[in-house]
This record gives sequence, C-alpha cells and structure tokens, in this order.
Amino acid sequence: MHRCRVNVILWFLENVKMENIAILGSTGSIGTQTLDVVSSLKDRFKVYGLTANRNVEKLREQIKKFNPEIVVIIEETGYKELKKDFPNLKILRGIEGLCELAGESRLDTVVNAIVGSSGIYPTLEAIKNGKKVAIANKEAIVAYGEILMEEISRNNATLLPIDSEVVAVHQCLHNRNVEDVKSIILTASGGPFINVHKEDFKSISVRDAVSHPTWKMGKKISVDSATLMNKGFEVIETHFFFRVGIDKIKVVIHPQSIIHSMVEFLDGSILAQMSVPDMRLPIQYGLTFPERFPSRVEFCNLVEVEKLEFKSVDSDRFPCLGLAYSAVEDGGTVPAVLNAADEVAVDQFLTGNLPFTEIPEVLVHILKNHRKVDRPTFDEIVQSEKWAKTATLNFIRQK
Amino acid sequence: MHRCRVNVILWFLENVKMENIAILGSTGSIGTQTLDVVSSLKDRFKVYGLTANRNVEKLREQIKKFNPEIVVIIEETGYKELKKDFPNLKILRGIEGLCELAGESRLDTVVNAIVGSSGIYPTLEAIKNGKKVAIANKEAIVAYGEILMEEISRNNATLLPIDSEVVAVHQCLHNRNVEDVKSIILTASGGPFINVHKEDFKSISVRDAVSHPTWKMGKKISVDSATLMNKGFEVIETHFFFRVGIDKIKVVIHPQSIIHSMVEFLDGSILAQMSVPDMRLPIQYGLTFPERFPSRVEFCNLVEVEKLEFKSVDSDRFPCLGLAYSAVEDGGTVPAVLNAADEVAVDQFLTGNLPFTEIPEVLVHILKNHRKVDRPTFDEIVQSEKWAKTATLNFIRQK
Repeated sequence: MHRCRVNVILWFLENVKMENIAILGSTGSIGTQTLDVVSSLKDRFKVYGLTANRNVEKLREQIKKFNPEIVVIIEETGYKELKKDFPNLKILRGIEGLCELAGESRLDTVVNAIVGSSGIYPTLEAIKNGKKVAIANKEAIVAYGEILMEEISRNNATLLPIDSEVVAVHQCLHNRNVEDVKSIILTASGGPFINVHKEDFKSISVRDAVSHPTWKMGKKISVDSATLMNKGFEVIETHFFFRVGIDKIKVVIHPQSIIHSMVEFLDGSILAQMSVPDMRLPIQYGLTFPERFPSRVEFCNLVEVEKLEFKSVDSDRFPCLGLAYSAVEDGGTVPAVLNAADEVAVDQFLTGNLPFTEIPEVLVHILKNHRKVDRPTFDEIVQSEKWAKTATLNFIRQK
Repeated sequence: MHRCRVNVILWFLENVKMENIAILGSTGSIGTQTLDVVSSLKDRFKVYGLTANRNVEKLREQIKKFNPEIVVIIEETGYKELKKDFPNLKILRGIEGLCELAGESRLDTVVNAIVGSSGIYPTLEAIKNGKKVAIANKEAIVAYGEILMEEISRNNATLLPIDSEVVAVHQCLHNRNVEDVKSIILTASGGPFINVHKEDFKSISVRDAVSHPTWKMGKKISVDSATLMNKGFEVIETHFFFRVGIDKIKVVIHPQSIIHSMVEFLDGSILAQMSVPDMRLPIQYGLTFPERFPSRVEFCNLVEVEKLEFKSVDSDRFPCLGLAYSAVEDGGTVPAVLNAADEVAVDQFLTGNLPFTEIPEVLVHILKNHRKVDRPTFDEIVQSEKWAKTATLNFIRQK
C-alpha cells in the first residue's frame, strides 16, 4: 500500500510537470501563434523565455501577459527601452543572448520561430544542452542542414518540425521505415499567382505578392510562397529532416491547402494529412508530440470543402522550385547561398527595388557566380552566406 | 566468430521462412485476387490450402497452379468430382473441412474470403490455434463481432483487416492511441445510384445494381454497395475491429474511391489513406503487415485524378446505412439479424423476386419483428440468423 501511494505521487509529479518553454521570435507570425497555443495548454507549458528582433511594443505586451524569466532582444535601442520598462527582468542582447537563453539549465523546450538562417546559433546551443527543439526556422535547416542533423544524431536530441508540410510528413511516416517510402509529396497552394498568365507577372505588386490565398503568414514567407521558393525550401528541409533523397521528394499544386502533404509507400498506398489551414495545428503538434490535445483549430468539414484539387507545377512560371532541387544536387554551400540570396532579393522586392519577375533571375545569377565549397565547415557556410548577401545586393543595385 | 556465424544462419532461417497460407473462399473475387497477390510474393508465401463453395472448375485450375496440400469444398457433388480428378490430394468437405484446415498445425496464416457469416467457424478455429487471420469476411464480424473480438483478446491473436476501408483506418491509426480519435470517417463511392433521383429507383434492374462504378467485386457486395448496406456493415465492422463507439464513426460520399477512409484526431488533424481502387492493395497489406512490399497495383497519380469530391449521405434514398447504426445501438443479436435478412433479401433481388426499392423495407420489417437477445451466446446468434433467414424469405414470398 505504502509503495503504491509513493508510485502514484511519483506518477503525478512526473505527469503534471510543467515544461519550461522559450519562444525565439515570439513577436512574429509563428511566435504569436505559438503563444496562442501555449495559452490554451496552460497546465503544460510555462513561458520561460521570449525573444524579438526589434518589435519592442509587442514584446512589452507579451512580457506583461506571460511573465517570462528571461527576455532577449536583438536590436540595441530596443534593449535600452525594455531595461527602463522592466528593471527587474533578466534582459539579454543579440545572438549571444539567444544562445544564453537556449542553453539555460531550467529550460526544457525551445521553439525556434526566428526568420533567417541566424536561427542556427541558438538551435545548436539548445541541442548541445539537451533541449527539445521545435523548429519553424526553415532557413536554418536549408543552410545548415547537414551540420544540424549531425548534431542531432551526436546528441541524440529531439528535433520536431513546425512547418505544416513537414509536420504532415511526420504524421504520415509516424515511425514507419523510411526505406518503404517511394515518395514524399509536398502540397503547395500555389500562392496568389497560380492562375495568373506569365505575361501578367510583370505587373505584380508587393501588395499582390503578400496576399496569400489560404495561409496567414509573415511578408517574407508570403513572397516566397508566391514564387514557390518557399516550397523549394521545404523540399530541402524535407530532404534533411527525414534523410530522404531529393529524387523522392515531389511537389503537387493543391489550391485548397487542406492536404498538407503526403507520403507514398512502395506498395502504392498513400497517406495524407489534412486540416483547415491554421498554423496553430502544426505548432501544437510540434510542442506536444507524441501526445495530442484538443486545439483551438476548427475541425475540417470535407463536405463543406466539397473538393480537393491537384495540378502539376508549371516550372516555366515558377522557376524557383527547380533552383531548390539543383541546390541540393549541387550540395555543399549551394543551399545556403540560394537561401541568403533569396533573403536579400525578397527584401529588395518588398522595398520596391526589384520587380517580382526578376527574383529568380537574380538567384540564378548568384548561384552561377558562387564558388561552391563541398562538405563545408560551419564557418564556411557563414562566409558563403555573407558573400551571397553582398553579391545579391550589388547585383540588384547595378541593374 | 563461430557464434556470429550461427547467428547469421539463424537470422537467415528466421527471415526466409515461408509462410504457409490457406485461402478460404479462393474462387471468389477476393480469393482470386489474394492468389494474384500471393503469386507476386512467391518467396514469402506457400499456398497450403484452398477452399471453395461450389466452383469446381475454378478450384481445379487453382489446384493445378498452386499445388496446395489441402483442399476443401462445401458442396457434396463438387467433392466427388475433385476426388476423381486429384486422387492423391487431401480433400475435405463442408464447414467441418474448413475448420480442420484452419486448425492445421503446419498452417501459419488464414485468409478468410468467405461470403456470409458462416465464415465465423473456421475463423474462430484459426484464432484458437494461434494462426494469423486476415479477414475480408465482414459478415462474420458483423454478426459475431463481440464474440470474435473476445476470442482475439483471450488468445492474444492477430486479426488483420482486408476490407479497403478498414485497412485504411488501420494505416491511419498505426498503433496510435484510440483515445485521441475524434472520429473515423469511412468513405463510400456511393455506388451506381448516387446521382439517381428517388423516383427512378423503382426501375433499377439487377444489371444496373451489380455494375459498380469504381470497384470490381462480387454480386452480393455490389448490390450491398448500391443500397449502402455494405457501408453500414463496414460501420459495424469498424466499431468491433477498433473498439470505437458507433457515435464516432461517420460516412462521407467520395465518388472517386481514391481516399479509402480517414481518421480525425481530437486536435483537428485528419489522416487519410489513398490509392487507386484495387483490392489487391488491402489484401497485400493484410498479408504482409507490418512489412510493405512492392505490389502489382498501379501508383495513384493525383494530378491525373484531378479532384477528390465529398458529399453527405442522403438517408432518404439510402435508408440501409441508418439501419446499421441502429442495429449497433440495439446490440445483441440485432446486427446478426440485419446481416442475415440482407443476405436473403439481396439473393431474392438477384433472382428477380424482389424489387430494389423493397430491400430496405424488408429489412425494417424483419428488424421490427425480431425478439432481441442481449449478450447472446454463439448458439443464440446462430438461432437468430436462422430465424431471420426464414422470416425474410417468408415475408418476401407473401408480398
């Protein structure tokens, strides 16, 4: 009887243990939706850390609401403002601050919702310190995939996806043998221009490009969705995440964004994962796997959806997808360069310095001029990214 | 070194061991397709037993091709013919013969592709003797579900589905926690009359009813598909197979028959299993699970399929589906009675003695007149089936 009661108490302590969670990039689109998910699972998660690039106003609100132990802000001016508002809070600065937070001994889980490949630094720090990492930061995977996955194996760490497509593949595979996979079929809504004629691509404005038909997302990823570069990055991400050859990864246009991706097995059977398009679902999956909990996401009524359509990708209008495939085939520093060049090109498009149609042209030019390093070290990838960013900016300015 | 070599040999013996398989109902639609699957997996399966109801001609061919150790035929005249043709072959008769085969010590796997609930006898015999059972015989599950599942638990036996919908659910669940399931969504092509007006149901002929738009199947199941009674039986089958409450099992019309069924989880995520409609795929899955092998089934090209549509079931035109739900709610002997009455009603429709529209009327009448037995014994189910068959035939004759 006595031992039984002790066991019950131990079970209770084990099972009601709160998970300390840090959300890197908490003021962005994925970050705020992650906080919404965390709010709905209050019994399970305690917000331990919040970080932002420069959005002090939103971060201030989040601090008041979630009362974190540590806050990190990248920009110096934001740091000073926050120090004044919250004199008793532990506030850190820059990438170093992100890494310090990611390695904190009391932290259990890191959600990486940073935009841009610099998210690799706190990610590696978290992995080395045995944290569970849920990652939405696909740029870090694209640029540092090989190194990241090696670090995961070396530390026997848990990396969970937050991208809706990658989460879909994760659910379809569900510990099945990857050798039984014939192909992974990533779905793409096709973005806002899937039915636009090639001649009309010239007149695409920033406003057009950031209006995604099915998903609520940040500006950079919305433009990447419009060029299908985002789908290309997901192809690369899938390749690294599941250790599946690039020849086995396919993309199909599915305008309704209900099927988030599929896995086809060698016997001819396909498994597909569906839901309404709402990022809170893959976020919650990444946070709570292998458990499931009720979510704030609407249930999907297929009778109301009526139909799910499929089309092939038109590589003539959307050449960026093909660039991702050849970047993986080329290997080495090439995916990192593609990602870095795209970051600058999209930024230049958003600020009005580059027409939409010239984004792929810029990328092709940069890839052509890159001197690839095979089996690069971490620093060699960093260098290749720096080169790519400068080269892209110079090339656009010369145009 | 020596121990290592022994281990390798043991591994080899273990892994190349042929599985002795018996196909009960080998001359029917599922039976012949099972033999096609077995032919493509010759290194894995040895046809140990074949059985038929009365189709001597086809059984003779199969004996010559697959060279089984034991053959069973139900009808007496067929037995005599076979005895003459294969004097040295072990040939057994009747249900007793089926049971003797199912319990044979050298047999590993039993495929039950029998039509009708009498398939329960060899199924139970196989389970009690520790065989793996792959079951396409949904009538046996519908009528004897509770007893069958109890026997499975008691013997810690392996029962695998062969029905395409149930196999789909099995793949979507894949050892996941059934408590995380919000609903199981069975798809139905809707059969040949899904777009036919109610007024035109009166003129439906046998030929119309056995022409299924997407699946190649036997006559009885084709008619059951046309009335949606088959979907109702699958609802009951799913209820017993996965121990899921009937309120959690839904049906949606999906005319393309590409999605074979879905599982919706409590977070809002849905998993779906797809393929071209070809029974050889669920058969192979049932035979080789948890392994997968390349199959003879065509891969599914979703771009060629173009779209997958969903509609709700019109219970006014298809009342049989609702009868299945209420049969499970009523419980006891009611599912067995519904199944037995349907067997007779469909047979009478096929022989021209009953109009298509009167099948559900007959079933409603029989269910109304049945005196339910709660928690029935095996014999009480047998008795209720006998009563139902006689009562159905009498009722149709009086009409």
